[in-house]
Amino acid sequence: MSEKRTELEKLGEFGLIDHLTKKFKTSVPTTLKGVGDDAAVISISDNEALLVTTDMLLEGVHFNLMYMPLKHLGYKAVAVNVSDICAMNGTPEQITVSIAVSNRFPLEALEELYEGIYTACNNYNIDLVGGDTTSSLSGLTISITAIGRAEKKNIVYRSGAKENDILIATGDLGAAYMGLQVLEREKEVYNANPNIQPDLDGHDYIIERQLKPEARLDIVRFLKELDVVPTSMIDISDGLASEIIHICKASNVGCHIYDEKIPIDAKTSMTALDFNLDPVTCALNGGEDYELLFTVKQADFDKVKGNPHMTPIGHITDKNEGLYFVDKNGSAIELRAQGWNHFKD
Amino acid sequence: MSEKRTELEKLGEFGLIDHLTKKFKTSVPTTLKGVGDDAAVISISDNEALLVTTDMLLEGVHFNLMYMPLKHLGYKAVAVNVSDICAMNGTPEQITVSIAVSNRFPLEALEELYEGIYTACNNYNIDLVGGDTTSSLSGLTISITAIGRAEKKNIVYRSGAKENDILIATGDLGAAYMGLQVLEREKEVYNANPNIQPDLDGHDYIIERQLKPEARLDIVRFLKELDVVPTSMIDISDGLASEIIHICKASNVGCHIYDEKIPIDAKTSMTALDFNLDPVTCALNGGEDYELLFTVKQADFDKVKGNPHMTPIGHITDKNEGLYFVDKNGSAIELRAQGWNHFKD
Repeated sequence: MSEKRTELEKLGEFGLIDHLTKKFKTSVPTTLKGVGDDAAVISISDNEALLVTTDMLLEGVHFNLMYMPLKHLGYKAVAVNVSDICAMNGTPEQITVSIAVSNRFPLEALEELYEGIYTACNNYNIDLVGGDTTSSLSGLTISITAIGRAEKKNIVYRSGAKENDILIATGDLGAAYMGLQVLEREKEVYNANPNIQPDLDGHDYIIERQLKPEARLDIVRFLKELDVVPTSMIDISDGLASEIIHICKASNVGCHIYDEKIPIDAKTSMTALDFNLDPVTCALNGGEDYELLFTVKQADFDKVKGNPHMTPIGHITDKNEGLYFVDKNGSAIELRAQGWNHFKD
Repeated sequence: MSEKRTELEKLGEFGLIDHLTKKFKTSVPTTLKGVGDDAAVISISDNEALLVTTDMLLEGVHFNLMYMPLKHLGYKAVAVNVSDICAMNGTPEQITVSIAVSNRFPLEALEELYEGIYTACNNYNIDLVGGDTTSSLSGLTISITAIGRAEKKNIVYRSGAKENDILIATGDLGAAYMGLQVLEREKEVYNANPNIQPDLDGHDYIIERQLKPEARLDIVRFLKELDVVPTSMIDISDGLASEIIHICKASNVGCHIYDEKIPIDAKTSMTALDFNLDPVTCALNGGEDYELLFTVKQADFDKVKGNPHMTPIGHITDKNEGLYFVDKNGSAIELRAQGWNHFKD
């Protein structure tokens, strides 16, 4: 190891991946897309390609078993990978699951975890085809790889957004983040006094959004039925602002998004206000909603307009116009991603 | 979590995977083979299939950074996955790499790790196409998924061995295990007195076999040139005995293997004797050689006979004859896998 020491937190998660992989060039003819989108794209015939994505979840970093039931964890671990396949406009078909687990876990705990994986495989119609089980010195780690399939002409990258395209978000945003806040608050209460029962009343929706998110495979099917191929797409895992920036950067464009258009469920707003948080800020920067963000050509907008699952939140502009968030007063504020930097203490 | 508590070590690694995945049935039409071989097999056209395999390596369980340079670790992590693709008689084309790492590691350490991954990608002609970088509370975890390709008619499963087929091992065995013993011994010496320089003289070969194993992609190419499709194949990651048992179990056959046929390098034997270990026992039960074990029909044996990389070590028998190891005196001993049980303390 060299003498120089650069702390990882200086780069952040995306900066780190970029830095470590920048020297890797793809050279195998079947590799259509390598690092840099929601999934890699591998050519399998003239018309079809496979999509490959992988995610690793660690106890204490990505989940807390104090409030995350293992069954939900198994389900969520599959769903977040399926979400990446959906973000390419593909259909998931197979997953592999590797787990590392310490002796602290009995077999019954792993059975619950796999029960959740099983339920997710059934719901999304995917096969578990491989994996690995090993011990760890501490904690639980889950690594899942999902494989999907799509016709090449239907695959949607982050990089295809064009000026005047409409930006659309599915479902509602910020709920998973507020669910996490409620769970964290009740954890603190419990830690202070284990005799006090957690008060989760009325928070079912936002807690379920945190603990058991669904990948929007239904949206992929909808788009197919509507005969709409988005010009760009990404899943909303790190917060809306971060994902919009990814699309604009990859597509070399700017955007305007509008405060009052951002879809937020009433329960999310109410809970945010209880916590003295701005609901829109939660939607912009709270992660883990696993909704989809995509752009469509104006010509396609009539086909998706009025769909209760799809909300237009803004439009794509020339790159030189920048990335702006327009608030209720009409003031344009430059869009920034707070995002997550796992490497910060 | 239920009240019952079953310790994981009771099942062992393979028993655990079997138990957790037994209820999963494959139902997606493109899944040709799920859990249970070196790689999953996914149909991509009438003639071709993709092979998918995944492996997770944890610091303190699978590797020790005290003697494993990060560059070698990166190389090895790729090689062990490539080895699984080779074991299906396929050609690797892409990998994804996920790492979790604590703040203890500076950027320069990860650069070294990725340098090794880069070298392996170049050597095996594969593209890095995706992955994930995240923080961990402690230690380094690497999860790699490799994707390979093969013509369907050339894919070799563990389950195809037939009575009278010849069992062949590639390269030599037990070296990686003896390399590990030397490294562990020098680690103990160093821990006792850090001023004593490690004595690795004369052990280059076996240490390299431990720290930088190669996947036998050359054998896959050889077999193609020789126009030989093995009837069954597996890679030797957990020790020869364990792999033979896997093949015989999957193929529903028995076998005889012969003590004096097992290929062991002179340096491995000498080191084993230094450690008061029987070299053949090391070859049978020592892991991580990443050689290939395969069976060929008698009609094909002439094509591989005499090849310096391939050693016939026995033959396949009827299941009722059992699995036997024949020692130098001609005594037949039932073959048992000592294997590795990661869940034992």
